[in-house]
Amino acid sequence: MKLNNRVTELLRIKYPIIQAGMVWVSGWRLASAVSNCGGLGLIGSGSMKPDLLREHIQKCKGATDKSFGVNIPLLRADVEDLIDVVIDEKIKIIFSSAGSPAKYIEKFKAHNCTVVHVVSSIKHGLKAQSVGCDAVVGEGVEAGGHNGADEITTFALIPQLADALNIPVIAAGGIADGRGVLAALVLGAEGVQIGTRFAVTNESSASENYKKAVCESGDNGTTLVLKKIGMARMLKNEFSKKAIELENSCGSIEELSKLLGSKRERLGIFEGDNIEGMMEAGQGSGLIENVISVKELFDELISDFEKRKREMM
Amino acid sequence: MKLNNRVTELLRIKYPIIQAGMVWVSGWRLASAVSNCGGLGLIGSGSMKPDLLREHIQKCKGATDKSFGVNIPLLRADVEDLIDVVIDEKIKIIFSSAGSPAKYIEKFKAHNCTVVHVVSSIKHGLKAQSVGCDAVVGEGVEAGGHNGADEITTFALIPQLADALNIPVIAAGGIADGRGVLAALVLGAEGVQIGTRFAVTNESSASENYKKAVCESGDNGTTLVLKKIGMARMLKNEFSKKAIELENSCGSIEELSKLLGSKRERLGIFEGDNIEGMMEAGQGSGLIENVISVKELFDELISDFEKRKREMM
Repeated sequence: MKLNNRVTELLRIKYPIIQAGMVWVSGWRLASAVSNCGGLGLIGSGSMKPDLLREHIQKCKGATDKSFGVNIPLLRADVEDLIDVVIDEKIKIIFSSAGSPAKYIEKFKAHNCTVVHVVSSIKHGLKAQSVGCDAVVGEGVEAGGHNGADEITTFALIPQLADALNIPVIAAGGIADGRGVLAALVLGAEGVQIGTRFAVTNESSASENYKKAVCESGDNGTTLVLKKIGMARMLKNEFSKKAIELENSCGSIEELSKLLGSKRERLGIFEGDNIEGMMEAGQGSGLIENVISVKELFDELISDFEKRKREMM
Repeated sequence: MKLNNRVTELLRIKYPIIQAGMVWVSGWRLASAVSNCGGLGLIGSGSMKPDLLREHIQKCKGATDKSFGVNIPLLRADVEDLIDVVIDEKIKIIFSSAGSPAKYIEKFKAHNCTVVHVVSSIKHGLKAQSVGCDAVVGEGVEAGGHNGADEITTFALIPQLADALNIPVIAAGGIADGRGVLAALVLGAEGVQIGTRFAVTNESSASENYKKAVCESGDNGTTLVLKKIGMARMLKNEFSKKAIELENSCGSIEELSKLLGSKRERLGIFEGDNIEGMMEAGQGSGLIENVISVKELFDELISDFEKRKREMM
């Protein structure tokens, strides 16, 4: 695997493979395992209160001496508190998402943080670059969880972002094996962010039911719902079916919000309710067949990448 | 460019690059130019009556001594007449779409035709393989025109199809340059089908307004509308806006069909009405900046492919 590029240098990692920060999935155990394998582990603060985030950061420091980071969804009401924790804990790599980095970048930069912002269009990529982000994650609509309104796919987004930006682009969405890593680099990315495949490892804190449901899903196992109140891609189940029915019958924002309720992600991903829970997952799910360790996954990703590269020569 | 694989052998072409059969775009002029450059040109019969199709086939034979084919949308009311024309004209390469090939494959095979069916899911890929198709086009949701209901993207679909099928997979959707061709092959395709980029060449019969509109569109210039009555991806304009408004206000199938009316594709693509016409185009539009000749496009595709391949070593 091509070892030295702007992303590996920026993030001080051996392989340009980043594990996405995922709610209820990526605590210290997953993040440290990924960093120990030479990728970048990210603690997903989206499902953590500030004190819990601090605990995960401290445990992660104890479990790896390698570089790791924290993903912060900027639309969180208590985002300032999360930011205070990461700065206090001297975290130097921030992946920001769901919101604009403009308001917070100065604070991060004053503490020598590398800031990578998740975008799903050229417009937001240029904005992130202009305010001083060091790189972007370009996330295609095949990715699990929340998605951009324009529904641009990884295959279309990555080359356009790479052409438009001077800062490095990390590809996300639909990447679950070594072929996907190589294809993303061919399209112009200098690294990949992988979500669902890392969610289905031993070290992920997702429930066994969630991992099983991903392994059993096929190519058409996910759906994009709740477009009016913050679109997300998830495994199809009773909840997603009800949400689609309500959307198709022109349910109001109030009705959709009521149906969604609170803690659906926790119910699905962490508690494993595969009927009423929201089990966020990407279209790469169809490529995932088993629960393995992070070490086994890295070995597979790298050997598949090298094999595919040789075959393409 | 890797020259010899199952797709180049099957279709008797130099480069595994297929020009999509597109309504109002791909007549004999475009198809013969593509075949003369070493790719596979396809006459798009979707916008032709049987007699016009025969005229285009005969003109194409006069313009190239290379292999070319015809795309046939199987849901056409007069599909039997179209099939009679291609068999009578001894066309040996058929790309079928929009419908099931099961009903017609015996007739094609009795006349020694190679049949490639367009699919957008593993289920339909396996079906095409089981009835005797020689290859499939796996079309991601970023492609222009009609799309599969599951909205699976090229990046997710191609490796899954390649794993599931024994027959070769040709990738379509979002491919507009040499990087895209190489990435598609990395993902497991043995060829690519390119639509919108070929629609924006001198030899395409699309209107100048259509070509200009694609060149001026950006990464978010297309939208997927009319999901209830045959979903299609098109450039955003007044018509697509009205269609989306009607969908969002729960318009009935009757109301949607009335809004669509007839000849919207002709109005947009062929007559160049970029307000009320339907201008079908894929998300690769954002990568297209100029109208060039088919020869120039082939030179670009191949040199970009080779360049990217060298860079990846």
